[in-house]
Amino acid sequence: MDFASVYSQFFPFWGKISDEDKELLCKSSSLRHFEKEQPVHSNASCSGVFIVKSGRLRVYILSEEGKEITLYRLSRGETCMLSASCVLQSITFDVYIDAEEDCDCYMISIPAFASVSEKYLEVQNYGLEIAVSRFSDVMWILQQIVFMSMDRRLAIFLLDEIAQNGEDTVTMTHEQIARHLGTAREVVTRTLRHLASDGVLEVARKGITIKDKKKLRGIAY
Amino acid sequence: MDFASVYSQFFPFWGKISDEDKELLCKSSSLRHFEKEQPVHSNASCSGVFIVKSGRLRVYILSEEGKEITLYRLSRGETCMLSASCVLQSITFDVYIDAEEDCDCYMISIPAFASVSEKYLEVQNYGLEIAVSRFSDVMWILQQIVFMSMDRRLAIFLLDEIAQNGEDTVTMTHEQIARHLGTAREVVTRTLRHLASDGVLEVARKGITIKDKKKLRGIAY
Repeated sequence: MDFASVYSQFFPFWGKISDEDKELLCKSSSLRHFEKEQPVHSNASCSGVFIVKSGRLRVYILSEEGKEITLYRLSRGETCMLSASCVLQSITFDVYIDAEEDCDCYMISIPAFASVSEKYLEVQNYGLEIAVSRFSDVMWILQQIVFMSMDRRLAIFLLDEIAQNGEDTVTMTHEQIARHLGTAREVVTRTLRHLASDGVLEVARKGITIKDKKKLRGIAY
Repeated sequence: MDFASVYSQFFPFWGKISDEDKELLCKSSSLRHFEKEQPVHSNASCSGVFIVKSGRLRVYILSEEGKEITLYRLSRGETCMLSASCVLQSITFDVYIDAEEDCDCYMISIPAFASVSEKYLEVQNYGLEIAVSRFSDVMWILQQIVFMSMDRRLAIFLLDEIAQNGEDTVTMTHEQIARHLGTAREVVTRTLRHLASDGVLEVARKGITIKDKKKLRGIAY
């Protein structure tokens, strides 16, 4: 695997680090495959820096009682720094990461990334920038949870799903949707029934089919 | 006001920037006084970099309906970068900031800080580090909201308050507490009544007095 040619296109700091450090990062890299729903990273460990080659990762938090909430997803070409939070001293919380689809990732091991990051402000800034942009994602989630009705949150969720998958049907169970939104299955079922009675969508065995995208957007935004 | 001597002790990057840039930052600084509850910064503007000299700032988000939630507080010696989020391109959300007590702050204007930040990776790094450490605070809030019972959230809030003020009585209205926690006044009143009936605290006109700190800690942690 020619990591150097991937990284030279991918990392803005690549031109600023020495050949030895480039080699160190490449030598400490591996290509990892994860099956759909396989855990990639869990709480309190420090797994490595991941760059999504294909597929999608889901980053979430989990309570002691098993309640989840999805913080954001990472798609092709995106870097995950929260799985390497030990490199960023100001990050004091832990997340879980699963493969949401079959997924290939480049992974750089922690000791190598940490030593290069320590040497170059450019590399430190890169990691911090990535983390700060995720901060913005999490603020959006927080605002949804605190300020929005479940109708609206579910509408936003469904619109995101169909945009990401390019289909009008979302093939997830109510339980799975509830987990994404950090709520109970009953709440999702009730809200879907409400939206269905308004003609916005249809709930069937095979999934939730959006019937009126315009109306759904009206609820979401 | 001798800003240079304050900043030399305060900013880790001070030794790395040129004398001209030091002068630029000092010339673009002012000492600002805010009365208790006075707004310091509001949504969508970019006010400047604030360093708290004395007093306390409260950083919060506000919904269209006027619902609030407190994200964190800044005390003496802490820097506020979210009031200068235009300098950090990856920050795409807005916050409100009020003086929670009478407050004196050093303020550096945006154009000066932005131009120095653009020139030195050390300065960029400083701003990003501050923002990332606030990300950790917000994750803690998110976890409380999604995963914790109101009993527990209120217990944590009251313990923080008495720790910060050094008194066993919290002189806030139920309405004010509700605003901090992003909930309704009725919920706070009901939860306080519940804690009072357990002998943990006493609700009186002058405020909420903690009677059994050990029990309150048991609920919180």
